[in-house]
Amino acid sequence: MTTSETGKGLEAAKAVVADDGAHVFRGWVQQGTHMALPVAGAEGSWFWDYAGNRYLDFSSQLVYANLGHQHPRLVAAVKDQADRLCTIAPHFAEERRATAARKIAELAPEGLNRVLFTTGGAEAVEHAVRLARLHTGRFKLLAAHHSFHGATSTAIQLTGDPRRWRNDTGTAGVVRFFPPYLYRSAFYAENEEQECARALEHLEQVIVLEGAKTIAAIVLEPVGGTSSGVLVPPDGYLAGVRELCDRYGIMLILDEIMVGFGRTGAWFASDHWGVRPDLMTFAKGVNSGYVPLSGVLVSDEIVETFSKTPYPGGSTYSGHALACAVAVEAIDTMRDEGLVEHAARLGREVFEPELTKMAERHPCVGEARGIGAIWALELVKSKDTKEMYVNYDTPDRLTPPGAELMGALMKRGVSAMVYINRLNITPPCNISEEDAREGLARIDDALTVADARVA
Amino acid sequence: MTTSETGKGLEAAKAVVADDGAHVFRGWVQQGTHMALPVAGAEGSWFWDYAGNRYLDFSSQLVYANLGHQHPRLVAAVKDQADRLCTIAPHFAEERRATAARKIAELAPEGLNRVLFTTGGAEAVEHAVRLARLHTGRFKLLAAHHSFHGATSTAIQLTGDPRRWRNDTGTAGVVRFFPPYLYRSAFYAENEEQECARALEHLEQVIVLEGAKTIAAIVLEPVGGTSSGVLVPPDGYLAGVRELCDRYGIMLILDEIMVGFGRTGAWFASDHWGVRPDLMTFAKGVNSGYVPLSGVLVSDEIVETFSKTPYPGGSTYSGHALACAVAVEAIDTMRDEGLVEHAARLGREVFEPELTKMAERHPCVGEARGIGAIWALELVKSKDTKEMYVNYDTPDRLTPPGAELMGALMKRGVSAMVYINRLNITPPCNISEEDAREGLARIDDALTVADARVA
Ligand SMILES: Cc1ncc(COP(=O)(O)O)c(C=O)c1O
Ligand SMILES: Cc1ncc(COP(=O)(O)O)c(C=O)c1O
Repeated sequence: MTTSETGKGLEAAKAVVADDGAHVFRGWVQQGTHMALPVAGAEGSWFWDYAGNRYLDFSSQLVYANLGHQHPRLVAAVKDQADRLCTIAPHFAEERRATAARKIAELAPEGLNRVLFTTGGAEAVEHAVRLARLHTGRFKLLAAHHSFHGATSTAIQLTGDPRRWRNDTGTAGVVRFFPPYLYRSAFYAENEEQECARALEHLEQVIVLEGAKTIAAIVLEPVGGTSSGVLVPPDGYLAGVRELCDRYGIMLILDEIMVGFGRTGAWFASDHWGVRPDLMTFAKGVNSGYVPLSGVLVSDEIVETFSKTPYPGGSTYSGHALACAVAVEAIDTMRDEGLVEHAARLGREVFEPELTKMAERHPCVGEARGIGAIWALELVKSKDTKEMYVNYDTPDRLTPPGAELMGALMKRGVSAMVYINRLNITPPCNISEEDAREGLARIDDALTVADARVA
Repeated sequence: MTTSETGKGLEAAKAVVADDGAHVFRGWVQQGTHMALPVAGAEGSWFWDYAGNRYLDFSSQLVYANLGHQHPRLVAAVKDQADRLCTIAPHFAEERRATAARKIAELAPEGLNRVLFTTGGAEAVEHAVRLARLHTGRFKLLAAHHSFHGATSTAIQLTGDPRRWRNDTGTAGVVRFFPPYLYRSAFYAENEEQECARALEHLEQVIVLEGAKTIAAIVLEPVGGTSSGVLVPPDGYLAGVRELCDRYGIMLILDEIMVGFGRTGAWFASDHWGVRPDLMTFAKGVNSGYVPLSGVLVSDEIVETFSKTPYPGGSTYSGHALACAVAVEAIDTMRDEGLVEHAARLGREVFEPELTKMAERHPCVGEARGIGAIWALELVKSKDTKEMYVNYDTPDRLTPPGAELMGALMKRGVSAMVYINRLNITPPCNISEEDAREGLARIDDALTVADARVA
């Protein structure tokens, strides 16, 4: 880049920042305090700003760009469909929508054959809950601590993290339980099997004491997403939850919005344990976020209920043609490029060994955990006491120590999300091994900043 | 089209219908009973099926294709932005997002300078409500009978039409009032001025008796959309509501999702009366639905509240680059093509005179009402008793008489929405006068089917 090109770039950046600062109202932060980096472009696992700084995208943005940025096949799918037909209302049949629904159903566990398309993730959760409530005729929902399900009314009430609190009215019918989390066991467990057995005993106690016949559904991320601390359940837990649901006649809603479509090294996270939910929400990875799309996979039994009575819900952009066209192409691309297997291998051969070593090396890291291409480092003030690096009750998403670490990462050209006391690592699932190792090296270096704080 | 081309088309249609029938779960209807017409393509104010039948789009799909189908400038905007950058996370600044926010704020009333971008219309309503609740520290909402605000938890509770009922838990803090509706006056009014004055007295009574200090916001469509019966408020009503909000310290949320961006022959419907809300929701026409986009315009006062405390809400696809790119181009195109003026003129010179004559001519039409490019014919069993053509309490969206009329319209090559006892007329805002008159002629003819039922 010549000096004058950089100069022009910086002028453009200034205009973007000015408009953005004056006119964009941002979620989750205080208005005016968030310094939004202007992004000029992106490709593959990288994006860059107007000053020519390049960043490894170790968050896949908000964990949706599973196929990375500007994938030629997805870009072509957008453009082809734009030429053909951008949009048609949900009550018509449309070729890309029908094909996307079929392909998604083909990937899903048996007995989940229909897709209710929605646009945002939270909206999918809203409809999954409504389907379960109307199917069972019950209102109450069980949801986990350490969970995130979105920001619309019911989705945020289901969410078990501090972002719920200022929205919490206690009127949504949500009762909470503790998921398995061995590092901070709520059950005084000493190993995975114990944690699993006790977490299931706990959940059954909650069901029994709440009254099974009052509960419409258990809502659960099969693997906790980045907001939830990337909690990978011990073997047997999900199957145990399914068994409890069957025994007590409760619907199981698995929220695969973040972990579906290859993220964990399987098409769906629940595939690792062969567990079939009654309703499954998805978004993000379904088309790598190139066009907004989400949905709910609905079991045949629940479909049957709504073949006798109309489903009282729907939305304007449901099954959007452009979004579905990219979903079709994304699924085919993921298969052709072996993305799922690649993510699994990266997890096994790169992230697990490297992050385990980093956890040992760095005083600020209490635990490394994850699967496939979704990992978290849990940050602590002390490995012995496990005191959290920042408090759970944070006044803002980015506490000063969190912001400092984010800054240290960006300075080293790697963009990864810090949330509460975790550093999350979720690059595109098709990242090259070389870039993956490069990003980890940069993170390794940035962590010295956090080490200095806890030393 | 040759016979063999038609043959191929019909084979393709069969495949679409098969996949659609097996895998798409549809909103608002019974699964399996809805016969989804497979749409093969669309252009301007027309779309067509695989058999080569062409339909005038007199609903603009779900009242979003304000610039019609496959507008070359909007298609080009999708493709250009797809080449540049499909998506980047909300926490970064992005050129198209910042520009869209600025352009939307420039169109909005003074003092509404920031945009919280969301993806679907209901989601925008959810966030508008949350902003009002947290800004005021109050929970209760006032919403109108004859209204539609979407299908997520709070949005559907705000909705004053039968689609709420099966979702109604009575726990959302919504209190309802009667809007002006002279044809079926709740206030025994005999003319517009009386209806207006009494509707405001009624609203003030509700505020006083509910306790002004318990009310966060009044949520209102400035002109009722198609689900709401296209109720155009009498002059003075919106200003009166604004005045009540000011007097009692209540936020005014205007839902411009359907009626914004040219639909009524003004950029925003509230512009007709110069009324400024505290929060304004938009979607649909903002980019003609080519890529899902919605948002909330936030007043400076409310922005100020959230400069001291984080806003507890947000979403993955907020300010999606591809969607914002089309919004920017749609706004420019609407201005360049004089779409707003065109819609206003069509309303004055074509729809008002023609529909008024049709209302006189047809026994089944009780009233024609509307503004710009959004009109409704209210269907009755008798002009004298005003008995509704179908009951308000309908077992499904499409009652047999409604379905029959829809069929009659489609048979004549015009697609328009029948909802409860209204036939809604909302073609693209840039429809040619010739096509507008053609569509009206076809509707005129189809209405004889409904006439026969009531005769
Ligand atoms: C598990 C899970 N559920 C729901 C959501 C909400 O999705 P959206 O932000 O699109 O509303 C998210 C978003 O990160 C998520 O990770
Ligand atoms: C006035 C109004 N508000 C909200 C909505 C909900 O929008 P969406 O269907 O995108 O959720 C609609 C949809 O028609 C609407 O007309």
